[in-house]
Amino acid sequence: MSYHLTSSSYGKSKVRLTKVVRKTPVHELFEFDVAVELSGDFQPAYTQGNNQNVIATDTIKNTVYVLAKENDFDSAEEFAMILVNHFIKTYQQVTFAQVTITQPSWQRITIDGKPHDHAFTNAGTQLRYVKATQKCSDASCALFGGVRDMLVLKTTASEWADFHTDRYRTLKDTHDRILSTRIDADWLYGWHQINFDVTRDKIINAILQTFATHHSLGVQQTLLVMGEAVLEACHAIDWISFEMPNMHRIPFNLEPFGLKFENDIFVATDEPHGVIKGTVSRTK
Amino acid sequence: MSYHLTSSSYGKSKVRLTKVVRKTPVHELFEFDVAVELSGDFQPAYTQGNNQNVIATDTIKNTVYVLAKENDFDSAEEFAMILVNHFIKTYQQVTFAQVTITQPSWQRITIDGKPHDHAFTNAGTQLRYVKATQKCSDASCALFGGVRDMLVLKTTASEWADFHTDRYRTLKDTHDRILSTRIDADWLYGWHQINFDVTRDKIINAILQTFATHHSLGVQQTLLVMGEAVLEACHAIDWISFEMPNMHRIPFNLEPFGLKFENDIFVATDEPHGVIKGTVSRTK
Amino acid sequence: MSYHLTSSSYGKSKVRLTKVVRKTPVHELFEFDVAVELSGDFQPAYTQGNNQNVIATDTIKNTVYVLAKENDFDSAEEFAMILVNHFIKTYQQVTFAQVTITQPSWQRITIDGKPHDHAFTNAGTQLRYVKATQKCSDASCALFGGVRDMLVLKTTASEWADFHTDRYRTLKDTHDRILSTRIDADWLYGWHQINFDVTRDKIINAILQTFATHHSLGVQQTLLVMGEAVLEACHAIDWISFEMPNMHRIPFNLEPFGLKFENDIFVATDEPHGVIKGTVSRTK
Amino acid sequence: MSYHLTSSSYGKSKVRLTKVVRKTPVHELFEFDVAVELSGDFQPAYTQGNNQNVIATDTIKNTVYVLAKENDFDSAEEFAMILVNHFIKTYQQVTFAQVTITQPSWQRITIDGKPHDHAFTNAGTQLRYVKATQKCSDASCALFGGVRDMLVLKTTASEWADFHTDRYRTLKDTHDRILSTRIDADWLYGWHQINFDVTRDKIINAILQTFATHHSLGVQQTLLVMGEAVLEACHAIDWISFEMPNMHRIPFNLEPFGLKFENDIFVATDEPHGVIKGTVSRTK
Repeated sequence: MSYHLTSSSYGKSKVRLTKVVRKTPVHELFEFDVAVELSGDFQPAYTQGNNQNVIATDTIKNTVYVLAKENDFDSAEEFAMILVNHFIKTYQQVTFAQVTITQPSWQRITIDGKPHDHAFTNAGTQLRYVKATQKCSDASCALFGGVRDMLVLKTTASEWADFHTDRYRTLKDTHDRILSTRIDADWLYGWHQINFDVTRDKIINAILQTFATHHSLGVQQTLLVMGEAVLEACHAIDWISFEMPNMHRIPFNLEPFGLKFENDIFVATDEPHGVIKGTVSRTK
Repeated sequence: MSYHLTSSSYGKSKVRLTKVVRKTPVHELFEFDVAVELSGDFQPAYTQGNNQNVIATDTIKNTVYVLAKENDFDSAEEFAMILVNHFIKTYQQVTFAQVTITQPSWQRITIDGKPHDHAFTNAGTQLRYVKATQKCSDASCALFGGVRDMLVLKTTASEWADFHTDRYRTLKDTHDRILSTRIDADWLYGWHQINFDVTRDKIINAILQTFATHHSLGVQQTLLVMGEAVLEACHAIDWISFEMPNMHRIPFNLEPFGLKFENDIFVATDEPHGVIKGTVSRTK
Repeated sequence: MSYHLTSSSYGKSKVRLTKVVRKTPVHELFEFDVAVELSGDFQPAYTQGNNQNVIATDTIKNTVYVLAKENDFDSAEEFAMILVNHFIKTYQQVTFAQVTITQPSWQRITIDGKPHDHAFTNAGTQLRYVKATQKCSDASCALFGGVRDMLVLKTTASEWADFHTDRYRTLKDTHDRILSTRIDADWLYGWHQINFDVTRDKIINAILQTFATHHSLGVQQTLLVMGEAVLEACHAIDWISFEMPNMHRIPFNLEPFGLKFENDIFVATDEPHGVIKGTVSRTK
Repeated sequence: MSYHLTSSSYGKSKVRLTKVVRKTPVHELFEFDVAVELSGDFQPAYTQGNNQNVIATDTIKNTVYVLAKENDFDSAEEFAMILVNHFIKTYQQVTFAQVTITQPSWQRITIDGKPHDHAFTNAGTQLRYVKATQKCSDASCALFGGVRDMLVLKTTASEWADFHTDRYRTLKDTHDRILSTRIDADWLYGWHQINFDVTRDKIINAILQTFATHHSLGVQQTLLVMGEAVLEACHAIDWISFEMPNMHRIPFNLEPFGLKFENDIFVATDEPHGVIKGTVSRTK
């Protein structure tokens, strides 16, 4: 009996790129945190310390910066496709490549109502998330979009009632609770020849509008309704997945102080938290 | 020879309060992370384990929620003053009290151009920061405002040149660099009878406008100019302090790849980073 | 065309349990951070807001504490099996359950060379990681062990040379470098009737011994050799997976200062970092 | 009325140095996270953008690595003194300098009971903390030692009772609770010609021994007793300060499940937490 390598991959993470496009006085700013992961014919590195096929992770890092220089792109989605395609096309030893990018939310500072040419501030905690994957046998990549850490909260129009009861239940029904979550969402782009910024704004907008206006009977229901709204608003998307922690606001017990809880005073807490996941797909 | 207690204090931190004001269908949301710190006649707890003077930190926590229930307020500043005053006035054993509050950046979700009544999303990484301190001999508290983690970046109109040269210097002069920082600022309110939201917006706006439009010869110079702009815009402020890490974007060396750096491709990095501090005061 | 839910799950995360066993003056301490995730017949909650099948995440949280009270166990592995089995056996609407536990490294404080009965301190940054999964059709669970954030560093006996060369490579060969990583490892227990603490110590020990004594030609090679050593030392394990970031120590360029780099002065950095992954399995 | 700079300083943070001393096959490893802060005659940089006196933070960073190369030292304390002295002695424009160092807990991997020559693993979450400060008028620096994030927990021999009662109190007396804290301590070295590793071990040991064996009537009492033990054990120390969050373990309410709480099942939580601070000094 002996041992063998049943799967393997390697790559470079936290490659932090800033690219400034200065074609006009209105500068374009791209700040990407890039991770590249490769699989392929690298077994000799594991079994014999023979590294001749291995593209060093430092080389991978260089490649991210060089391709950012040599290519024009308008979005993280486009740059992810450029990168993943490069690794598949350039190296015959690479059989699978994955590129992920996260991007913070810079927006132009507003001066007298107008966006500034070259000064930016942060527009939110949420991050743009993009993933591209490609096999050596594929003509093109699979392209995923996403968002991370999009915080939302509503102070009413949210219930949690009539759920399963047994020995372990102590929570009472409520017909008016605070609902708050930190949305992570991922989706698959069905087409790649689109304006990704416009498409993305439609998706984010559909999520926020639905969260605000839908009367929620539970995070599960809200998730499905948000997914349907996104697919309705955006035909370039085949499916959307959500992972939504339920960031509880727990009623503070005012009784010992001779006061009445009127849905007004809550303890905000991160631990423990519920997690609700689901994928909504287009029925073909 | 023996030992004695030369200073002491205690309190409760990370008291996370959510308050919803439902007087009209347009709900007001306050989310505060509160810390209370007390000093006073508590030596017997240290020396003998005699706790009779000690207001338990659990009691302090309860007090935050109860006072949030019993009082109307429009800002973290007002709630901090209510809290610190309570601890000084209620407990004769307390000779000094400090209350700090941080508040995340919730804003209303926009639907058809209108802010929603009860649904919110996050408007930025920056936190509102407030501190109130009071001695038992004081009639009122000292009140400090502030901001934490306000991210800004400009792609040009920033230089760093003609600085000290010696054996340890390797950095070259640059007359066009990216300038980015994560601003922490603190200020002292000279008057307490003001609209804190309006005042605060003036301060934040003065910082952002100056950052965007001032041609920077160094973070130090930018700091002073921003401080002057704040004091000019806002007469209720006596002084403002800044702590500004210099979040470097380092030119990527493209030469080995036969490419030319054109102020376009940078490595973003957090470590190491410069830190520039300074306080700008009104000359009386 | 319409939309449907193609996958879903939900649960509770960050359920933080402390259990003290006081059978003798030598107290046993268990501190677990538990996450439970369930799949099954919950579609009506998504499609209609009908929650009658849904075990509230608050109920799940209660269950963790109640089962900790009602059951004896000696390890996180045993408690994970108790929990996952409970959810599968108790609820016919649950078709798949997963329980993950992370556990910090408490060790007894040593007094005069002897471990103390009831006082503990921290023994390292590493966390014990356990996962149990079970389908409703399974008689028993699949049980996985693991470690997170085990930091190791060697100052020599590590090379990185003779790797792929092309336009994007700038890194030179080195035959003596610092190797440091933060090991995450996961393994599958082939048998469940074992002493998990003893087994686990064997695994951790095999990893550390191999890391220290093996002359490394690359992280990939080290990974495979460590996996083989674990499987050799521990017959209860079917396979082991590693994810190992390469936490680079980069030679500091001393030349501008008229000094010579003698493998002595390095810049420690987290960003970017290599990531090497691999699974080593027993050949049957 | 105009404005002026009332205080200022600047420096470099997160300078991460790894130094390996290879004088014998038993390698010495130093990993320091260094921050340098300078004050002095730098006003023209703020007021005019005149940087000629400013030692760039990049230069400060270089200096850390160069002085690590050029000097022998056995501890973070010694290196902090070398650095702070350098900045004061080298630059007449510097009137005050401060150097802080944090150092992770590497220990040698044990093979067959013996510490390995060049392989290390992590020994705990705690960090060594050192600070040196010096004015231009001082012949030598003030030197502070410290520890950060030293986790301790005891399952019994800890009470919290007979504390202040009023309207805001709901917590009941307890005569047997879990006590856990994450100790930050700082001390002033009275002498600089000592073996810092040995001294430090004495201090840490006195803290741990006292925490384990002292019957606690409150964190305040434990703090003072620990401080006295340190000053008793270690004559090179003038005073010691503690900041100790009370990391609560809250009894889980088992009543709804027909079970009895027997000081066995607790909810571990970080938020909110008490904070107890105090400084214990030698009476002269």
